[in-house]
Amino acid sequence: MSTSDDTAGWLDEVRWGDDGLVPAIAQDCDTGKVLTLAWMNREALAETARTGLAVYWSRSRQRLWQKGESSGHVQKIRGIYLDCDRDAIMLDVHQTGGIACHTGRESCFFHRLENDQWLVISKPLKDPKDIYRRK
Amino acid sequence: MSTSDDTAGWLDEVRWGDDGLVPAIAQDCDTGKVLTLAWMNREALAETARTGLAVYWSRSRQRLWQKGESSGHVQKIRGIYLDCDRDAIMLDVHQTGGIACHTGRESCFFHRLENDQWLVISKPLKDPKDIYRRK
Repeated sequence: MSTSDDTAGWLDEVRWGDDGLVPAIAQDCDTGKVLTLAWMNREALAETARTGLAVYWSRSRQRLWQKGESSGHVQKIRGIYLDCDRDAIMLDVHQTGGIACHTGRESCFFHRLENDQWLVISKPLKDPKDIYRRK
Repeated sequence: MSTSDDTAGWLDEVRWGDDGLVPAIAQDCDTGKVLTLAWMNREALAETARTGLAVYWSRSRQRLWQKGESSGHVQKIRGIYLDCDRDAIMLDVHQTGGIACHTGRESCFFHRLENDQWLVISKPLKDPKDIYRRK
């Protein structure tokens, strides 16, 4: 998809936030489900394009993080998109294992607002203890 | 969907950023397309739930903004979702007019990375001059 490093010109066209980040949506190319909202800095996007696997910037751990690095649930890139304002990324991905969420669910968006309450609307497909056993 | 104002308890469960905002994805309930990535503060989310129409916080204009207020291309809410970390929102919407982008396109994500270049992959369905004529 890209042979370039993080000095490449196409990375300059992204309007990085004051913190150097932009939000990145991952959508499942098979089911159409929105899986995750994560964050990318310049290096994360360069690595995503170079490797063909989603790489994000972890705000909590303050480091690059290849999605699935410990769970095996990597996101294989089918397409990288930028929005009209050039400050948001969308990834079309094949979600390995069909599980994007650290809770073992297909998607991270599993709370639905119903009658002024956030209801949990999906069950884990796998116990997180079994997902992260390899750690 | 909600009868509550912006003091409601379910709004406290969202982990608002230091700037009081969270990113909000809108997905088209008919086509499955990811349409927009915008931002919400507490009041925007309360208004979205109360009115059943997507209301965002405009970072550039620093004010609440009902999506489609000038174009007529409102987003009718079918569902409001919160992610596992409680710091990102996803809206399932019916996109009036089939146009979410201010450029007249269905989706804002119309640049695709190909060979280290952002290519424009879709055409406007309508000329923005005709969309915003009512202003």
